[in-house]
Amino acid sequence: MRTVYVNGEYLPEHEAKISIFDRGFLMSDGVYEVTTVLDGKLISFDGHAGRLLRSLRELDMSPPCDMDELLGIHRELVRLNEIENGLIYLQVTRGSDGDRDFVFPDPEATKPTLVMFTQSKPNLANNPAAGKGIKVISIDDIRWGRRDIKTVQLLYPSMGKMMAKAAGCDDAWLVEDGKVTEGTSNNAYIVKNGRIITRELSNDILHGITRAAVLRYAREAQMEVEERSFSIDEAKQADEAFVTSASTFVMPVVEIDGTPLGDGTPGPVAKRLREIYLEESLKTAI
Amino acid sequence: MRTVYVNGEYLPEHEAKISIFDRGFLMSDGVYEVTTVLDGKLISFDGHAGRLLRSLRELDMSPPCDMDELLGIHRELVRLNEIENGLIYLQVTRGSDGDRDFVFPDPEATKPTLVMFTQSKPNLANNPAAGKGIKVISIDDIRWGRRDIKTVQLLYPSMGKMMAKAAGCDDAWLVEDGKVTEGTSNNAYIVKNGRIITRELSNDILHGITRAAVLRYAREAQMEVEERSFSIDEAKQADEAFVTSASTFVMPVVEIDGTPLGDGTPGPVAKRLREIYLEESLKTAI
Repeated sequence: MRTVYVNGEYLPEHEAKISIFDRGFLMSDGVYEVTTVLDGKLISFDGHAGRLLRSLRELDMSPPCDMDELLGIHRELVRLNEIENGLIYLQVTRGSDGDRDFVFPDPEATKPTLVMFTQSKPNLANNPAAGKGIKVISIDDIRWGRRDIKTVQLLYPSMGKMMAKAAGCDDAWLVEDGKVTEGTSNNAYIVKNGRIITRELSNDILHGITRAAVLRYAREAQMEVEERSFSIDEAKQADEAFVTSASTFVMPVVEIDGTPLGDGTPGPVAKRLREIYLEESLKTAI
Repeated sequence: MRTVYVNGEYLPEHEAKISIFDRGFLMSDGVYEVTTVLDGKLISFDGHAGRLLRSLRELDMSPPCDMDELLGIHRELVRLNEIENGLIYLQVTRGSDGDRDFVFPDPEATKPTLVMFTQSKPNLANNPAAGKGIKVISIDDIRWGRRDIKTVQLLYPSMGKMMAKAAGCDDAWLVEDGKVTEGTSNNAYIVKNGRIITRELSNDILHGITRAAVLRYAREAQMEVEERSFSIDEAKQADEAFVTSASTFVMPVVEIDGTPLGDGTPGPVAKRLREIYLEESLKTAI
């Protein structure tokens, strides 16, 4: 049984509860981060902490604690749950003043809610899906316009995963104004003639911590990177494709809307980037 | 202290909690309704129950109970909390299978969560704001594309209320592709030469229960109704404007983006519709 964290307390997971008046529950007024644990250490903690602070700032929300304290809670959860490989989920909401209103409660009188829990994933780094690659479908991107803020408004991404599943695929790429924005819970890339192409940062996509690291490693390895949007048609004609996220690292995409990419197996760029990412991330894990 | 309802139990509000793994909290995977109580009776219960079932169906979610049972819980909460005038909030989420995943949990093994609570509003029908009218600003509508489903993804509407407040106004009208969709938590109307104009139903707006009733009463009173979208410019040149919702009924709008409408006081059509709505709603309250 897991031990989880709720507002200062470490609790058995079945006792971990929040008020029904919490704005995270009533108004989706919350943000989250997912940090990976490999060999018992945290990957890119500073990146996640920095993005969390940015999400909070964009929503005029206060941090629930300072980032050193947050690191301490991460480590305590890793220790208590004996996580060797897995994920740490954290969610901050605007809390509750005991009732429901669209107007934000007085920030002086209302503490943010902080909830954290672990997910043990022994095979995270050896995920067999990475060897086969995943299949994606394309669907309309009808999410709200501030995807750069990592809010808990995940209903449509969830629906997208279900649509992919119903189509016999693994995930969905979201398309807006004819261009791919990103995957349901990852950033999307294509590779053509050795060039890595991925959408530029804006309010339209999540500013992936893994994305930033992978692009940095790619450039350091002298790979060409082009940050611009692309269509599903262009993606179908690419040599290969992949997605990145904290929990899947670099995951090859081998089929888009039923069209196999290249020979239908993971491409060399994705495989190489996955290796580099895992190797480099472990070096700087804390 | 209120008595609230959580999954079959009537509890003191401070003990009303849900699991941190509830998908309503983690993924905004929930829908809601707000039903008005006047003189101790429920307004348009059948309309709210019908819309709830539609929201659930659109999201492949199961109803938490049958609608007679739901009516019984509404009435019990009115009785326990001695509500003469006020609101009953209900929220249904997809529940939880004890962990976090984008994929929906097995519906056979996972019960939806049902949370309900009351808000006493003694002056609901005599709201002084209705005598003065409200001021609105216009903001971009960046919400997700399925506003016909009454989900708890209310962060942007909340932000809109805060933007209105910061501008010294009461609410915001949302604008997409140059046309008003609706208010942050209400449907929007203008009146020109006696004609009532309001956006037609689609996935772009909430299918307001109050909207349906008000348009029916307007037509029965031989008023002309035109269901089409309108711009902020057209609204500024209207004779009057108003919004409708379960909790505000018919609320006059007297100013849009700093431009007073007509003489800057509530118009005769809005005032008349408010009277008719209150009178007729009470007749059919249960």
